[in-house]
Amino acid sequence: MQSQFFSLNSHPQGLPDQSLFDLKTAELPELSDGEVRVSNTWLSVDPYMRGRMDGVTTYIEPFELGKPMDGAAVGEVIASRDSRFSEGDRVRHAGGWRDVAQLPADQIEPLPDFEVPEQAYLGVLGMPGMTAWTGLNTIAEMQEGDNVLVSAASGAVGSLAVQLAKAKGGTVVGIAGSQEKLDWLESLGVKAVSYRNKDATQLSKDLKAACPDGFDVYFENVGGDCLEAALNNLRVGARIAVCGMISRYNDQSASAGPGNLAMILIRRARMQGFIVFDHWDQYPSFLNEVGPLVARGEIDYRETVEDGLEKTPEAFLKLFEGANQGKMLVRL
Amino acid sequence: MQSQFFSLNSHPQGLPDQSLFDLKTAELPELSDGEVRVSNTWLSVDPYMRGRMDGVTTYIEPFELGKPMDGAAVGEVIASRDSRFSEGDRVRHAGGWRDVAQLPADQIEPLPDFEVPEQAYLGVLGMPGMTAWTGLNTIAEMQEGDNVLVSAASGAVGSLAVQLAKAKGGTVVGIAGSQEKLDWLESLGVKAVSYRNKDATQLSKDLKAACPDGFDVYFENVGGDCLEAALNNLRVGARIAVCGMISRYNDQSASAGPGNLAMILIRRARMQGFIVFDHWDQYPSFLNEVGPLVARGEIDYRETVEDGLEKTPEAFLKLFEGANQGKMLVRL
Repeated sequence: MQSQFFSLNSHPQGLPDQSLFDLKTAELPELSDGEVRVSNTWLSVDPYMRGRMDGVTTYIEPFELGKPMDGAAVGEVIASRDSRFSEGDRVRHAGGWRDVAQLPADQIEPLPDFEVPEQAYLGVLGMPGMTAWTGLNTIAEMQEGDNVLVSAASGAVGSLAVQLAKAKGGTVVGIAGSQEKLDWLESLGVKAVSYRNKDATQLSKDLKAACPDGFDVYFENVGGDCLEAALNNLRVGARIAVCGMISRYNDQSASAGPGNLAMILIRRARMQGFIVFDHWDQYPSFLNEVGPLVARGEIDYRETVEDGLEKTPEAFLKLFEGANQGKMLVRL
Repeated sequence: MQSQFFSLNSHPQGLPDQSLFDLKTAELPELSDGEVRVSNTWLSVDPYMRGRMDGVTTYIEPFELGKPMDGAAVGEVIASRDSRFSEGDRVRHAGGWRDVAQLPADQIEPLPDFEVPEQAYLGVLGMPGMTAWTGLNTIAEMQEGDNVLVSAASGAVGSLAVQLAKAKGGTVVGIAGSQEKLDWLESLGVKAVSYRNKDATQLSKDLKAACPDGFDVYFENVGGDCLEAALNNLRVGARIAVCGMISRYNDQSASAGPGNLAMILIRRARMQGFIVFDHWDQYPSFLNEVGPLVARGEIDYRETVEDGLEKTPEAFLKLFEGANQGKMLVRL
């Protein structure tokens, strides 16, 4: 049986383009004992994958040039030589960026059985959702009534973060770009602030107008001007959970950081970076808490879907244009 | 009785100069019930006072133009209308920048009775010492064996921080300027690295050479290139205690921050600002631990002393030239 997959032919300089991605075909080897073959139905593309394209180990192994790329995926078992899986099982695994994946059974997990579409386990109930929950609770230690600011608030992570924050009270402000995203955030009870055509000074003022008392928690997905504006609006004892800095991922040389880092001192604030994989042992707790909310329709989540394996690079690149609302997915 | 004191005549733009400080004389009012009059013997000047000169409330009230400035001081009670104090008592209080202070008794504390020179209670056993101990233990949560980096390592705060860190094992690296300071640090068993004539890239390399495994803790007193170089040398899970950013205190406009803040994310590091006054309830614990070490000569501390009240502004300004080794003091 054949598998089609993407591989990188070189390391991107700055913003990647589609020419870096090669769609290849390989014959899969015979299934060995303990292996499972999965026909993927949904693939995830995520901003953190950009960091894996530089050939340097950061917190995760880089993609190897010429080898199959990988990432989260959901699919159906089509052959199994492991007693834990049977044909027809719906599973999640890390063999994405391809149509058919063949993996050891211990790298595959059955989908939980909440009444949600299966691709939710790549988004609101998957890694992005778990990231929102971990950043807010474990890293930022959000308390009842805290005022919370979230950047990239209409993204896969941000849109759950604002809703979980909203449920605990306090003023919740979300930064986003397009009117459509701002409208969605407002519909969730979030005060939406656009970053478009603003420098950090103007964004600072707009955040202050949205929440004059300042923020106890900042959930950071963007970096750059968003961070600078947030630093100007911290309350004493504020906590910043640094989940990502997507505005910087394609920088070819280091851009200067915010000029107001001393606010960390003046406001006795804490800024902490985290990687969700370090906290994966808490995934069952997350699922117990958020799974029922999603199944009952109490959490609103959106998806931006591209169809067809060949669209995977395009879907990935759209993340850096802010073209996605909610989770960016590829449907096979 | 007369008191001579300093007051500010205007808010400094950038680096202050001596023309901002007026030495004035005023007749003290009659001592009221509950008040104590103190003849000061030692005055403290500290970097944090720069932040009080801008007329803006940050974490502490600003100095009022034309009014007596204040700050930590040690002296002898020369008159008392409170039963807790008698003539001849040695005390510490916040009525500095003057020769004779008159204060409510509850704003005065008797000096502890370790066998140390009284001015030690303004330095190694005073606010700067407590700052070092709090930053290392409470904020950075230093663990046995951690590798620790300290900037401004020969200063009043830094020089205790490196010694407390050294006592818990691990590699301790201190950043300082002059050869004399570097030699002192080396004599304490600290690896000393100069920041002089280096950009952040070179300083990063030199820190890496001094401690190839990277740092678990960074005690930040300086900001700027020191912070950037430190961020490049963090271990996973590192903690940065932000005590000060003296390199920025005289900036007239915001200078750009470090371009490598994303290291906070990559290394899952935590950066936390603190103000020692928030932790003052722990001062007795600090004194119990560090007081005996100082009394037994197990902690080396240095002082840079200016003589005479009129030298107070000069002593203060020297802090920004790095002209002090250890605690900067004025002896009356």
